[in-house]
Amino acid sequence: MALAVSAKDDRTKPTATLDRLTALLAADLKSVNALILDRMHSPVALIPQLAGHIIAAGGKRLRPMLTLATSRMCGYRGKRHIALAAAVEFIHTATLLHDDVVDASDLRRGLATANAVWGNKSSVLVGDFLFSRAFELMVEDGSLRVLDILSSASAVIAEGEVLQLVTSNDIETSEAAYLEVINAKTAQLFAAASRIGAVLGERSEAEEAALETYGRNLGIAFQLIDDMLDYSARQAELGKTVGDDFRDGKITLPVVLALKAADERERRFWRRTLERMEQHEEDLQQASELMRKHGTLAATLERAREYGATARRALAPFRPGPERDALDEVIDFCLARGY
Amino acid sequence: MALAVSAKDDRTKPTATLDRLTALLAADLKSVNALILDRMHSPVALIPQLAGHIIAAGGKRLRPMLTLATSRMCGYRGKRHIALAAAVEFIHTATLLHDDVVDASDLRRGLATANAVWGNKSSVLVGDFLFSRAFELMVEDGSLRVLDILSSASAVIAEGEVLQLVTSNDIETSEAAYLEVINAKTAQLFAAASRIGAVLGERSEAEEAALETYGRNLGIAFQLIDDMLDYSARQAELGKTVGDDFRDGKITLPVVLALKAADERERRFWRRTLERMEQHEEDLQQASELMRKHGTLAATLERAREYGATARRALAPFRPGPERDALDEVIDFCLARGY
Repeated sequence: MALAVSAKDDRTKPTATLDRLTALLAADLKSVNALILDRMHSPVALIPQLAGHIIAAGGKRLRPMLTLATSRMCGYRGKRHIALAAAVEFIHTATLLHDDVVDASDLRRGLATANAVWGNKSSVLVGDFLFSRAFELMVEDGSLRVLDILSSASAVIAEGEVLQLVTSNDIETSEAAYLEVINAKTAQLFAAASRIGAVLGERSEAEEAALETYGRNLGIAFQLIDDMLDYSARQAELGKTVGDDFRDGKITLPVVLALKAADERERRFWRRTLERMEQHEEDLQQASELMRKHGTLAATLERAREYGATARRALAPFRPGPERDALDEVIDFCLARGY
Repeated sequence: MALAVSAKDDRTKPTATLDRLTALLAADLKSVNALILDRMHSPVALIPQLAGHIIAAGGKRLRPMLTLATSRMCGYRGKRHIALAAAVEFIHTATLLHDDVVDASDLRRGLATANAVWGNKSSVLVGDFLFSRAFELMVEDGSLRVLDILSSASAVIAEGEVLQLVTSNDIETSEAAYLEVINAKTAQLFAAASRIGAVLGERSEAEEAALETYGRNLGIAFQLIDDMLDYSARQAELGKTVGDDFRDGKITLPVVLALKAADERERRFWRRTLERMEQHEEDLQQASELMRKHGTLAATLERAREYGATARRALAPFRPGPERDALDEVIDFCLARGY
């Protein structure tokens, strides 16, 4: 994954939205949503209830839209991309549900997660159901190539989630280990969702690889911004929770970089709050201030812009047109959240 | 699923073991175990550690052995059954890991589950990893027919687990609802594992259906005995835990039948202990005594014998030989645990 990029490559528009993409894919998205509703149905009422709660909850459908847009950009004109986009969304939703599962210790820390309503076990089992449904959709589609891409992606995602758990509370976590985590837990599905478009369009290996590169770098940029926003006032402005990662003891890039620049006193702060998990009310504020002091949020954003630029270059070989423009704008959208 | 059976069909040997089956399949089982070890490997050390803990922990490998034995009985002489048997075991293990996930309330009730060592989240994520690995193995095998059977089975299993959760603490649960639960959560994988043998052997639809019937009825019998043993002194003799289902508020057949026969005072007992979950030290003992009084453990065993007899009849169309004899003896093994 090449990273080098000069500042002038960057054409990020701070006001970018997903509007162009959603407008372009409106009809397809409608079909995907209908299929999602249909396939999350079960005679066991709790399943559509719980799945509906998370699937309907204003999801951007970013990952399935990658499959839809790349398919069309690659000249695919059939209907298979609908089911595969739904499968991608089901895998994503299952991951979200399983990501929300907490241990008793977390509950005691008073976290409010989605699973609080129905309990851990329901979240896990409904996640399993959606994951199985994803595979059923792929099997119906019948492409072993797609099954291969998405079953491997699923294993890598699970590996990344476990690695994230292992690096939690470990303030010695390196930047490389952090990148390994987000590459696996987030970027792998972005990459797979994008690659499928080239498979459906029966494009060359090189074009498949280009879309894989696009999705992977987009995914890393997306997660970097996400991790930055968890410590950002802008996130609070948007009415979203700030400090979830801090309270979970997750070691994200803003923390890794702050630790790199820390003096002894600051190191003791990070060790107490993230390693020993002894957190007081003003600690999140203090963490954000240390990040500002060392410029680690800005550095994280800069890193995200570099990955964004790599994603952008990966689109170059493809035919110019509304799909390519929209996929290009997705990069801006992901980055714009960070401004 | 036909059930009618006369008593004289029953040839259960109370001392039956799995020895004949394991001896017959020794070489294949060795290959399956080697493949399992190989495929549960990950650079993330926690994954093989946790997976190894549950996979190595003296599992009977009953489900993968069904795939191995039915394949051979159906004349299959290749090597594909090894990977598919490993996939079946991975699905089973993932289910076990996810089944062990508890809510904070359960932890407070002081249950010791496998996840106690590594926490809920690790169990969930390693389960996801194994589940993905199962699909990777199937994709490598390349049979969409097998993928179809096992992805559908996975969805049904998850549905059954959710239904079990929904019927927990509900003393109005009917016998039909209980059967639906165990049919889905347990018998579906037995059925799928057995059916695959006919697919590999390229046998007729009728023979596929016969092995599906064998596996399904065997699975129901297996679960009925399991549910019976949870209240049985014999289980305690074997050094295993008794009363897990009771403490979880699960409504199993021995309970359903005891409720059917209950007078008002007994109904109040079940309502307090299983619905309101107000359990005292002597309640499990009292529950077992009510079951003895109404003969519900004996009735559950009798039910299991009927399903066992149906499973046995399903083997009749197949060529007599060591594989068929061994599959026949599996039925005895499952039932013998109940004597």
